[in-house]
Amino acid sequence: MTITSTKNELVKFMRSLKQRSARRESGLHLIEGERLVFDVLEKGINPEIVIVDEKKTDFIKRLDDFGCKYLLATSNVIEAISDTTTPQGIVAEIKTPMRSMPSDWDDGMYIALDALQEPGNLGTVIRTADAMGASGIILGKGCTDPFSPKTLRSAMGSSYRVPIYEAELETCVSAMQRQGFLTICGHLKGEVSVPQIDGRKRVLIVIGNEANGVSDAVADNCKKICLPMFGNAESLNAAVAASIMMFTVAMQLHKQ
Amino acid sequence: MTITSTKNELVKFMRSLKQRSARRESGLHLIEGERLVFDVLEKGINPEIVIVDEKKTDFIKRLDDFGCKYLLATSNVIEAISDTTTPQGIVAEIKTPMRSMPSDWDDGMYIALDALQEPGNLGTVIRTADAMGASGIILGKGCTDPFSPKTLRSAMGSSYRVPIYEAELETCVSAMQRQGFLTICGHLKGEVSVPQIDGRKRVLIVIGNEANGVSDAVADNCKKICLPMFGNAESLNAAVAASIMMFTVAMQLHKQ
Repeated sequence: MTITSTKNELVKFMRSLKQRSARRESGLHLIEGERLVFDVLEKGINPEIVIVDEKKTDFIKRLDDFGCKYLLATSNVIEAISDTTTPQGIVAEIKTPMRSMPSDWDDGMYIALDALQEPGNLGTVIRTADAMGASGIILGKGCTDPFSPKTLRSAMGSSYRVPIYEAELETCVSAMQRQGFLTICGHLKGEVSVPQIDGRKRVLIVIGNEANGVSDAVADNCKKICLPMFGNAESLNAAVAASIMMFTVAMQLHKQ
Repeated sequence: MTITSTKNELVKFMRSLKQRSARRESGLHLIEGERLVFDVLEKGINPEIVIVDEKKTDFIKRLDDFGCKYLLATSNVIEAISDTTTPQGIVAEIKTPMRSMPSDWDDGMYIALDALQEPGNLGTVIRTADAMGASGIILGKGCTDPFSPKTLRSAMGSSYRVPIYEAELETCVSAMQRQGFLTICGHLKGEVSVPQIDGRKRVLIVIGNEANGVSDAVADNCKKICLPMFGNAESLNAAVAASIMMFTVAMQLHKQ
């Protein structure tokens, strides 16, 4: 049986997941496109539902090879569900792997984001965190949704590899500090320097909102650092600042 | 006199500048919004034309303070010219400061981009280059337009501070190499290391296309470097890789 109508109840539900509120309520989100869907299957994640264009015989064969169940649909149905202007003929509904703050944190490098608002920036931070071997990303209040289509696209599959936590940042940062974490934040009024971890194995990097930086209540529990700049721009893009900090910290962690 | 019709010839011309071909042909582009327009005026750049919403008395006063000529228009006219969904009531037409390859390059750090396609990535590279004191950005064939609205937005005003060159990259890289430049490119098959400039004062960093990297003909004239990664992501976002390379090179250049 092929789904042909965009008025199908399942299709209507999947379309509703374009809204953040519906994603939050259901604990589900959508991914789409060949790369992301098969990437997820390769990681052993089981989508709740996969819908594939009945004409995409190559995708159907690959889904069969994975032993993955799927529903067939006509192109217009996939288009209705898709977030992109040129849908690739495959969408999947996935359980959102969002975690709440654990009572004890493991060793490693974590990155906390205070009201980061641009989906592209968040996706880029997730991708770099994955590349730099971060142990987790902690999202404070006011952050953009890590499982929105745009964030997922810029994260390039890393959203399922790095644990993503939600937390009240002020509480979280002071708890991590008590648990032996070196807590650093990017701050335009901070000491001009590269993060120095001095042999520590537990490092938390906090990056703030694109326009307003890290809120005072959070920054007060951190060593404030401003990356050296040698030119005229007043500041770096938030994802770039986060990436340079993660890179410099990871280089030190892995030299120990 | 206030422009009230979107059929006004000037308005029609300004709207045409949303197209890259029209920008290229005329050597003009548009900027919009309070921050960007007044930023440009503060830098002493004279727009060809400024159009301001007749109701924006604060903008009009500031334009008068700058001694800047402007035309008044109704909101619908500004909306028609604007690229954003929430126009701020001011747009300006600027001469595009694009340069062709000089015969002799100055000392310093340059960054060349080989078919970089995402406007947000290009804008971010321009912003970081400005922050890191780069002497120029060189755009090879296939790069997205540095003066498109989206690129300008992510460059945050840096597009007018860092010289932007257009060049045939293969020729340009080998010319710079002959002129004593250390030429480095980001390459997934390169040596895993951080760029080492060994006291050189002339460094060119080449970054490639988001999907395909640096083309072979260009990479062959460069030392290929892959930034150390410690996790699972296969690669970094192009603007992040460019930014980390610029940061590590700038740190060495400024320690000398």
